[in-house]
Amino acid sequence: MLRAIQNLGCSSSGWLLWKPRTSTSACKTPSFRRFRARSESNPDAASASSSASVASQSSSFGNVRKISFCQWCGGPTKHEIPSGEEKMRAICTVCGKIAYQNPKMVVGCLIEHDNKVLLCKRKIQPSYGLWTLPAGYMEIGESAAEGAIRETWEEANAEVEGLSPFAQLDIPLIGQTYIIFLAKLKKPQFSPGPESSECQLFALNDIPFNSLAFSSMFVTLNLYIEDVKAGKPKFHYGTIKKRPGTSPSDIRAFTLDYHLQS
Amino acid sequence: MLRAIQNLGCSSSGWLLWKPRTSTSACKTPSFRRFRARSESNPDAASASSSASVASQSSSFGNVRKISFCQWCGGPTKHEIPSGEEKMRAICTVCGKIAYQNPKMVVGCLIEHDNKVLLCKRKIQPSYGLWTLPAGYMEIGESAAEGAIRETWEEANAEVEGLSPFAQLDIPLIGQTYIIFLAKLKKPQFSPGPESSECQLFALNDIPFNSLAFSSMFVTLNLYIEDVKAGKPKFHYGTIKKRPGTSPSDIRAFTLDYHLQS
Repeated sequence: MLRAIQNLGCSSSGWLLWKPRTSTSACKTPSFRRFRARSESNPDAASASSSASVASQSSSFGNVRKISFCQWCGGPTKHEIPSGEEKMRAICTVCGKIAYQNPKMVVGCLIEHDNKVLLCKRKIQPSYGLWTLPAGYMEIGESAAEGAIRETWEEANAEVEGLSPFAQLDIPLIGQTYIIFLAKLKKPQFSPGPESSECQLFALNDIPFNSLAFSSMFVTLNLYIEDVKAGKPKFHYGTIKKRPGTSPSDIRAFTLDYHLQS
Repeated sequence: MLRAIQNLGCSSSGWLLWKPRTSTSACKTPSFRRFRARSESNPDAASASSSASVASQSSSFGNVRKISFCQWCGGPTKHEIPSGEEKMRAICTVCGKIAYQNPKMVVGCLIEHDNKVLLCKRKIQPSYGLWTLPAGYMEIGESAAEGAIRETWEEANAEVEGLSPFAQLDIPLIGQTYIIFLAKLKKPQFSPGPESSECQLFALNDIPFNSLAFSSMFVTLNLYIEDVKAGKPKFHYGTIKKRPGTSPSDIRAFTLDYHLQS
């Protein structure tokens, strides 16, 4: 039975979770551990199939003003709200085509093995040297599950099976949506891929929360621990919103809004 | 309790659903009604915030060869597989930037009201005159839930609340992922927006399956009916794969692969 729970519009500090759908109360008591802020290079710029792709996809994504030319005809663009729309777009002054930009999906696996989870230490920027689940940008021509399996192979040389949907986490500020699947190892073998310096299974009590790469991973792993403790794996939907005035390098400076779970 | 079920790699005709995760058998008996093929203009090109955006986003999306110029510096592109990657990309010959293309998310609402669901008749191409759930491309700066609420307002002048995640349906062939939420009407008022000629509540037995706009809507509504009959709303993940050799205009010529449900 789907049990929908949501917490819409709460924006105070810390974790804001688990408000019953029918309740009219505001924000409930945070249910996760709190951690002090910590600096890092570039949270929530997802790992991708190469460091080049991370850099390119992160640097110019979402800023319509940076689109100066039409990628189809080469004509210069103007920046206007097209008739019948509400958002500023880059419109070609020669052929009239509009260069739409949309959020990107980052797909990955939370691998459960012997009551541990598999993490990869990043050998690339952003967040060099910090720990993450294997994940990266979904490609055209593949499904989210296929992309998550591919990224897990590329980053951890691990073959997975038995996927089940675990979380969708939107990060509107940077135009990313994380789609995370629970998965099992086909064989108990793994090793660092080209983008990882190390891959390791961690017991839940040993997860390196002080050295995680991205807010999305912090949320995902905390939700997972809560579910394991409750003995109930669920599907989670939520929105990660950075707290205003905080550094983008603080992966804990956010609220989890609109949290729904099955 | 999350109950993961999957059906990976089945590709025969009709509905291919509900294989228990632990089972090693192939495809199970189709559980949905079957319908004869029917022609239409352009299935699964999602409704968006304007007809212009549908046309632009559909026409050139996913074909890297059509990207001839760099949108940042205007330089001509070459089409190669970058070092360390595996896919052909458009790379600027002047500034070296790579124009990545990724799947787009289409977000929408399945509104339940008085044991009926709300559908909109499209007043724009593609699939002019056919019925759809209110849905459209997710924008940068919004969450999937916010996008689904916005699209529902734009297409049906309907205010919704009480969202819960219902389905993620990937369509790799056209680089789209549908994210559908169940939702309730805040008030029992709705009317056609600029892209709809009509909005109507349909009892489940009266859903116009012979006049649906897209495969994604056919799948979503069938999954919903199954869940209602079972008395168990679930979260569904699946991949819509067109059957080889069939017309793209036949919205029933597909298999639903890798179906997972909570």
